[in-house]
Amino acid sequence: MNTFPKTDRNKVKRLPKRGHYDAETIYAILDAGFICHVGFSVGGQPYVIPTGYGRDGDRIYIHGSAASRMLKNLDQGIPVCITVTHLDGLVLARSAFHHSMNYRSAVVFGTATAVEGEEEKLHALKVISEYILKGRWDEVRAPNAKELKGTMVLAIEIEEASAKIRTGPPGDDEPDYELPVWAGVLPIRQVYGAPVNDPLLRPGIEVAESAKRAK
Amino acid sequence: MNTFPKTDRNKVKRLPKRGHYDAETIYAILDAGFICHVGFSVGGQPYVIPTGYGRDGDRIYIHGSAASRMLKNLDQGIPVCITVTHLDGLVLARSAFHHSMNYRSAVVFGTATAVEGEEEKLHALKVISEYILKGRWDEVRAPNAKELKGTMVLAIEIEEASAKIRTGPPGDDEPDYELPVWAGVLPIRQVYGAPVNDPLLRPGIEVAESAKRAK
Repeated sequence: MNTFPKTDRNKVKRLPKRGHYDAETIYAILDAGFICHVGFSVGGQPYVIPTGYGRDGDRIYIHGSAASRMLKNLDQGIPVCITVTHLDGLVLARSAFHHSMNYRSAVVFGTATAVEGEEEKLHALKVISEYILKGRWDEVRAPNAKELKGTMVLAIEIEEASAKIRTGPPGDDEPDYELPVWAGVLPIRQVYGAPVNDPLLRPGIEVAESAKRAK
Repeated sequence: MNTFPKTDRNKVKRLPKRGHYDAETIYAILDAGFICHVGFSVGGQPYVIPTGYGRDGDRIYIHGSAASRMLKNLDQGIPVCITVTHLDGLVLARSAFHHSMNYRSAVVFGTATAVEGEEEKLHALKVISEYILKGRWDEVRAPNAKELKGTMVLAIEIEEASAKIRTGPPGDDEPDYELPVWAGVLPIRQVYGAPVNDPLLRPGIEVAESAKRAK
């Protein structure tokens, strides 16, 4: 896979050794999530909206309320920044200064355009759905023409991107290792609970395979 | 507590019944997290950077790499959007169209200015630290003058804000309730694992109280 050139836009400025520019690393971070924070600017005013997403090659699809506010301001395409963050742990050092977090984040720059055709819209929605819960798309009623028309979807071609990753234990200043202070990592992860039936579920319907498989 | 007026900037446009504007609701969402996504714009180009934060009354403090890139572009203060999102579950309906998520998100608008004085900086860092892991600040070596100087901190006065919340089971179209499709909610939550000692931990030091209490 390719590597994105470092530019003033995507370059990791603080702690540059944590920066990555290869698509493999960046796309692995995207593929491990399904909620992004999309940023765009209207008349100098920035907006950051959480929304679901899916990646299809070098393209990201988003829909929902971010698309709603953006589409209102969209003409031939507006520059967006899409950020995906996975928090892996608190890094607890001996000094306040060296406290940190373990994380994997990807920052993607591109231009958002509306997805218009029925076929591409259906494809985009399936990509997003599969990102959120693999296999669910084929279990449910597909969108009809009216629903498709009422769904806003944006496509963003990835122009530039970077990732930032921190792993491992804290790094303290040499003299601080003598302090009688506990140091280490407090791991954090996101987990699924047991599926909860819709109170209106018809009797005799088993929990969906997609929900059983989620982890 | 106060309620923020609805303006063109903070008004929840899509599914407005999910919107909230009272500080109590919004601040509860902020207080339940410690990672935000901060958005700002440089020459029309939006940036979205994940970073730690803490709230102190109607003010949010952030530091780290977001501050780094922003400070470079900061003069008398630049408009920012700070978004905090908690994902509570996947809402799995009978139709693709009615799939959704349960979540609590807060979107805050304000102006970021650099925190300069040693005393306010120390206060801001303690606020952020307490947000991330309550009690940790008092267990560790406090920042010295040199570290304080090298730490970038921004203060954002909350000018406008809104929250968006979804809870509960899916809502399907009436005819779809007859479909033989499982529907319900797949709960999601963030959990801490057991604390992992720093490999360089001196023998005989117990896990910190702050880390034991984390949940």
